[in-house]
Amino acid sequence: MTKYVYLFHEGNAAMRDLLGGKGANLAEMTNLGMPIPQGFTITTEACNRYYEENETIPDEILTQIEEGIAYLEKVSGKKLGDNQNPLLVSIRSGSRASMPGMMDTVLNLGLNDQAAEGLAAKTGNPRFAYDSYRRFIQMFSDVVMGLPKPTFEKIIDEVKEQKGVHLDTELAAADLQELIALFKAHYEKEIGSPFPQNPKVQMMEAIKAVFRSWNNPRAIYYRRQNDIPSTWGTAVNVQMMVFGNMGDTSGTGVAFTRNPATGEKKIFGEYLINAQGEDVVAGIRTPKTIATLEQDMPEVYKEFMDIAKRLEMHYKDMQDMEFTIEEKKLYFLQTRNGKRTAAAALKVAVDLVDEGMLTEEEAVLKVEPKQLDQLLHPAFDSAALKKAKVVATGLPASPGAAAGRVYFNAEDVKAASLRGERVILVRLETSPEDIEGMALAQGILTCRGGMTSHAAVVARGMGTCCIAGCGEIKMNEEEKYFTVAGLTIKEGDYISLDGSTGKVYAEDIKTTEPSISGDFARFMAWADRVRTMKVRANADNPRDAKNALEFGAEGIGLCRTEHMFFQEDRIHKMRKMILSSTEEERRAALMELLPVQREDFIGIYEVMAEKPVTVRLLDPPLHEFLPQEEEAIADLAKDMNMSVAKLKEKIASLHEFNPMMGHRGCRLAVTYPEIAEMQARAIIEAAIHVKKEKGYQIVPEIMIPLVGEVKELKFVKNVVVKTADEVIRESGIDLQYLVGTMIEIPRAALTADKIAQEAEFFSFGTNDLTQMTFGFSRDDAGNFLEAYYQRAIYESDPFAHLDQEGVGQLVQMAVEKGRQTRPNIKLGICGEHGGDPSSVEFCHRIGLAYVSCSPFRVPIARLAAAQAAIKNLR
Amino acid sequence: MTKYVYLFHEGNAAMRDLLGGKGANLAEMTNLGMPIPQGFTITTEACNRYYEENETIPDEILTQIEEGIAYLEKVSGKKLGDNQNPLLVSIRSGSRASMPGMMDTVLNLGLNDQAAEGLAAKTGNPRFAYDSYRRFIQMFSDVVMGLPKPTFEKIIDEVKEQKGVHLDTELAAADLQELIALFKAHYEKEIGSPFPQNPKVQMMEAIKAVFRSWNNPRAIYYRRQNDIPSTWGTAVNVQMMVFGNMGDTSGTGVAFTRNPATGEKKIFGEYLINAQGEDVVAGIRTPKTIATLEQDMPEVYKEFMDIAKRLEMHYKDMQDMEFTIEEKKLYFLQTRNGKRTAAAALKVAVDLVDEGMLTEEEAVLKVEPKQLDQLLHPAFDSAALKKAKVVATGLPASPGAAAGRVYFNAEDVKAASLRGERVILVRLETSPEDIEGMALAQGILTCRGGMTSHAAVVARGMGTCCIAGCGEIKMNEEEKYFTVAGLTIKEGDYISLDGSTGKVYAEDIKTTEPSISGDFARFMAWADRVRTMKVRANADNPRDAKNALEFGAEGIGLCRTEHMFFQEDRIHKMRKMILSSTEEERRAALMELLPVQREDFIGIYEVMAEKPVTVRLLDPPLHEFLPQEEEAIADLAKDMNMSVAKLKEKIASLHEFNPMMGHRGCRLAVTYPEIAEMQARAIIEAAIHVKKEKGYQIVPEIMIPLVGEVKELKFVKNVVVKTADEVIRESGIDLQYLVGTMIEIPRAALTADKIAQEAEFFSFGTNDLTQMTFGFSRDDAGNFLEAYYQRAIYESDPFAHLDQEGVGQLVQMAVEKGRQTRPNIKLGICGEHGGDPSSVEFCHRIGLAYVSCSPFRVPIARLAAAQAAIKNLR
Repeated sequence: MTKYVYLFHEGNAAMRDLLGGKGANLAEMTNLGMPIPQGFTITTEACNRYYEENETIPDEILTQIEEGIAYLEKVSGKKLGDNQNPLLVSIRSGSRASMPGMMDTVLNLGLNDQAAEGLAAKTGNPRFAYDSYRRFIQMFSDVVMGLPKPTFEKIIDEVKEQKGVHLDTELAAADLQELIALFKAHYEKEIGSPFPQNPKVQMMEAIKAVFRSWNNPRAIYYRRQNDIPSTWGTAVNVQMMVFGNMGDTSGTGVAFTRNPATGEKKIFGEYLINAQGEDVVAGIRTPKTIATLEQDMPEVYKEFMDIAKRLEMHYKDMQDMEFTIEEKKLYFLQTRNGKRTAAAALKVAVDLVDEGMLTEEEAVLKVEPKQLDQLLHPAFDSAALKKAKVVATGLPASPGAAAGRVYFNAEDVKAASLRGERVILVRLETSPEDIEGMALAQGILTCRGGMTSHAAVVARGMGTCCIAGCGEIKMNEEEKYFTVAGLTIKEGDYISLDGSTGKVYAEDIKTTEPSISGDFARFMAWADRVRTMKVRANADNPRDAKNALEFGAEGIGLCRTEHMFFQEDRIHKMRKMILSSTEEERRAALMELLPVQREDFIGIYEVMAEKPVTVRLLDPPLHEFLPQEEEAIADLAKDMNMSVAKLKEKIASLHEFNPMMGHRGCRLAVTYPEIAEMQARAIIEAAIHVKKEKGYQIVPEIMIPLVGEVKELKFVKNVVVKTADEVIRESGIDLQYLVGTMIEIPRAALTADKIAQEAEFFSFGTNDLTQMTFGFSRDDAGNFLEAYYQRAIYESDPFAHLDQEGVGQLVQMAVEKGRQTRPNIKLGICGEHGGDPSSVEFCHRIGLAYVSCSPFRVPIARLAAAQAAIKNLR
Repeated sequence: MTKYVYLFHEGNAAMRDLLGGKGANLAEMTNLGMPIPQGFTITTEACNRYYEENETIPDEILTQIEEGIAYLEKVSGKKLGDNQNPLLVSIRSGSRASMPGMMDTVLNLGLNDQAAEGLAAKTGNPRFAYDSYRRFIQMFSDVVMGLPKPTFEKIIDEVKEQKGVHLDTELAAADLQELIALFKAHYEKEIGSPFPQNPKVQMMEAIKAVFRSWNNPRAIYYRRQNDIPSTWGTAVNVQMMVFGNMGDTSGTGVAFTRNPATGEKKIFGEYLINAQGEDVVAGIRTPKTIATLEQDMPEVYKEFMDIAKRLEMHYKDMQDMEFTIEEKKLYFLQTRNGKRTAAAALKVAVDLVDEGMLTEEEAVLKVEPKQLDQLLHPAFDSAALKKAKVVATGLPASPGAAAGRVYFNAEDVKAASLRGERVILVRLETSPEDIEGMALAQGILTCRGGMTSHAAVVARGMGTCCIAGCGEIKMNEEEKYFTVAGLTIKEGDYISLDGSTGKVYAEDIKTTEPSISGDFARFMAWADRVRTMKVRANADNPRDAKNALEFGAEGIGLCRTEHMFFQEDRIHKMRKMILSSTEEERRAALMELLPVQREDFIGIYEVMAEKPVTVRLLDPPLHEFLPQEEEAIADLAKDMNMSVAKLKEKIASLHEFNPMMGHRGCRLAVTYPEIAEMQARAIIEAAIHVKKEKGYQIVPEIMIPLVGEVKELKFVKNVVVKTADEVIRESGIDLQYLVGTMIEIPRAALTADKIAQEAEFFSFGTNDLTQMTFGFSRDDAGNFLEAYYQRAIYESDPFAHLDQEGVGQLVQMAVEKGRQTRPNIKLGICGEHGGDPSSVEFCHRIGLAYVSCSPFRVPIARLAAAQAAIKNLR
């Protein structure tokens, strides 16, 4: 029979998956002989069973729980539901990973009207007994039954006012009895039945509440953000109560072995006398710092410090602990690796190595890669942030904090920026024409589009804070205002954006600039030493390339040539090319684009020196380069010397029903080979130029996008090779180059053995591959993905975390088939997933040579690649 | 060393792949001892080599060709290029399949100024010698060098006029010499060099021209239409000349062993005295019927009839033969299985069985499945058609012929139809609101959309002639006219459509109704006997279902519930549902749709009796049900009692960037489970009703579309099962039903093992699967696919013929994975490919239980399935 209930001494820290973090650590501490109140853990498997059995607890689990209770009754000499000597327990959730969204604790479970009397009599402390009972009613009502907390707080406040006291602790036993009666009456009125007096009923309801809380919306959201599968389940910890509310020699507190904000090696914590549970953090009374305990209770302090040190040594990491003092006796209720800021994480990791506690490799595993974002972007001043009110939440598309005045188009942003204003660009959605405004803005906010929309991709490349797809905003771009949460925000008003959380504030919040300490460089050097995968950046111009280099990029994995065409001086030439009606006209227009494009590549090569650069040929459908608004169309028609009607006809003829699945990628090069010719010429001429001028040995990697069939690749490759060889021959200079393809169409993955006959490298374009494999577009999925998360169908955004089961299967298939044909084929990834730690680990596991991501994510990818290498060695 | 050249006696009929049809049959006839001028065949592999070597003929092939010539010189005693006794040859292409688009023949190759003199001297027939030379110059110039034919015809006409003669045969030897001089001058003027005098140069140029013709646009188009891969290549036949132009005891002709129009067992052919090559079909002189030959040259006639009979017995099929008589000696130049009408094909097949020449199984293989279309749809009167002029060509979306007055919207069609007019509906593209107009129209013509666009799919379902995506037409729907080929066609003007070829005519062409003979039923019964795969139909209403049954459908594989909602009385209820702002409102609107939907299913079940019916839950995005035009929006707003602004906001909120990859399919049921509930209720209630009323044992198959993840399927399935079980329980009647899914998203195929945990059947939706696997939408691919065909990247439309390499790989993977989990899982296909013979064969090979296609394609699918079964047994 499956064992669903473990007594604390039956478990250990290694059983985290089964017992949850809290349960495993309580077991470990029990075995270390630390003062832990006895208890047991109901496993995460029991949680999964609960859901399999349509949200009921099967009998075999019930039996095991009862055996657990019997054990507690035996060791304590108390009895659950006994009127004289009741066994009281706490019920707490605890999953494999720390999950802030989960259920709060229920303390003092086991109390009812009689047992409270019994406890009062037995302890001779009626105030304690009634305080415990009123707390239990409060917690059970809120946490298990979902009655809102504030009503209970209001009742307490009313009683305090009536009694003329200020603090909860000033309420006498009789006052608390009154409170209990009021609480119970409120409960019965709201729930429709009396407050449950049977402790077994109380317990089973509480356990089911923990299981249910695993699928509450907060938990689902948190899991999605942190890539935690719902199959992990949560454990439930049932632990005998110890009481911090027995008087002035009792208390409860929380402490960190080091400072979680800075990493400083100094104990950091607070406690509160005569208190229980959340009192410490609730801010009703001001807690004391842990140092004060040395004076208050020196022996307890010594024991506490001793155990804290042992725990840190044992877990080799900074610990976050909860403790309770019951009449001068110290108990530990929990320990876990403490959450910390990125700066603290780096300092702790580096210090632990210096203290000899960790090897460098172990230290590399101690920092969450995603956390590094904090170090690279501005953040809100934490004091200012506390007072700010969130007015809307969108997708956290590009991290960092930004505050500034709202403008609704790129031109206005430019003008305001010239006036020296801090600016936030707000758009329904951005288009490539907004690039300049985006570069000048402190932050970008869009109403539509997902994590890989134009705004999101470009902003991440620039390292600019961006919130995308904020649908709560009702936009009026023409009249330059938007409304949200009942407010109207006009042009010039201040707003603030937190690109790391997606939160929007309708005020000007102070930001602080990021600062990188020496620890960073030291730590990243350790990571780089163990890493086997290369990390490249996606960069489209010399500025982004420079950024990328500074963040440690070892090459460019994706240079999107189309972004180059959107600048004011080029878009005109591009449009002329698109509006050409003959190949001859098109070739003439392309000749004008050639020198511009060549200059761009020269700039990038000069920055990257001999590091590899992969250039992707033109990818987006041509209509993206044409204006859509009446005025702009009229201007262009005049400019091009054609009638408005004729221009509109041309624009209409380029219209597509599903642009994502339209005339784009290599399909452009198949229909207009002269475009690919021009681009190949620019790439090769630039490389030859830089080789001549600087002596760099450059090996351009020319990447043909959106290939689905080898003959398609072969056709475009022939165009590229013919041009490239001609340019090389003319120059009289020797130059190597590679021609490869993106694998971003399912058919390319399925036929990768054939594709590899022509492709010298594969770069996985996992954005498009995800779209095609799932059959939904990133721009439209927002309309239904929320329902999918709520129904636990998808647990995370497949555009943020690579779907290893489906998309990953295609990637793996392509890797295997590609290698069959060309054993040394160069393999990398250049989709957004290249900067996502779990996806990076997948890339390592299947043996890719590099990942490529936006410049600001390069450090994250470096660390994630290092951690993947270490984990896979183990 | 590879053998690239085969003498005729080295080959046989089985070597068709290597020698082409013509070469293999010439070899076969040689071995049968028939009178065949000697020659050799250059293989199809040589053609492929030619392309591999960048359009040059490698030396090893040249050497073998020279050996072939040497052999011919030896057996004939003549010499290529000899001035006294020149060897003359014909050069003809011949691929594995008959390809009308290929190169024409070059006769009399080997002649030059001297050789012509020599031939004149040797034969004592200068007229013959000069006639042969002028013909050679003409053919070489046209076929090999691409000089337009009409110029040569014009020169002949001028000379004839000058000489005062009427027929070519009346030109004397001297006249022909003049003609030769004029031809050569014209050649030199146009080509820039004199007419080649070296016979080896002539020959190599002609051979290369054959190879080149394999990739001319006509050939590419023909291959695409007929699913012939470009890798087959073409062979070249070099054959010694025999001459039908040596005088009145010579001639040339073509004949069929049976009548190719009716199948009647009676020789059918024509010949022309003193003629060569194309003279018979060129219509310059009126040819004589083959019967006349009995009087003209009784011995030749007897020999001819004897050989013709032997050939038919040998090939067990009606033969199409070419022959030449040289001074009373009969030669055969070609035999092949004759092309024939569908009616003739059936009659020949049935007759050959009755004559004991074929078994029933062999007969089943003799009819092209696609040809059956001809029997099921109206056709143009062939005399009327000959005089008609094609003004545009679109996609042949639904076969048949139609003529009528043009109307531009469904309402006008309806009105005209009530007046008794024959009507053609012309639209930019159709939408579901046009259904009624489409049903009333004789034919449908659209400017946009592909073979699987709305218009195409619906028209095929109805059996109505349709041409889709006819981009040459410039449309003005508002002012009700279109322009094409310089004509303006207004409302009420007549046009005619050929839905089998895509040709549009700007006139009223007489049509003839289809008629099905007794042969059809007999023949199809043989096919059904050997067939192992079931054939179902896609039908959305009782009328289509009835049609399907008449064509032999064994069930409904796809009933698209959305089509039911577009009728006038329902669209209103549907829109009310869509515009609901709460679940409550939506449920109320759904309750109004329930009885309507139930009635539809009752109607279908009553028609289908106990045959299986697969019903697909709502699939298209909701915005498809809302109007887009100002006026219609205003009407609807009034109707719904909401402001125009609010309605527009709602419509805008439903807008999608890529509707194909948007909020549709099961995604609707995930967000609005109440829709799936209503549909499940309607399906089950209808089945129970029919069971009660008629006693039919119906097992509804409920199909959940667009699934990509098993949890998604499980969620919707739970909704369906809960409702269905409730309805069954309430009814007190026992009813079985199945819940399955479409496999149309790549991820579903990749995770089919998991999907099969929940799905009781898979139906492959290969339209969407093709879109997602290739990453292009069927509606947009028209913009670039033409370039892909021209560049031989794709050889056929992947929406018409299943792409077995890519899409097929996913289908096969899903079949295997699905069976791993659920060995008896029911497997079928319901995409458009279900009616395409090559795709049907693929389905048979991978072991699907059934294919489902539009009702009018059911006979095609039945025959294709039978042929697949026979071929796979062999």
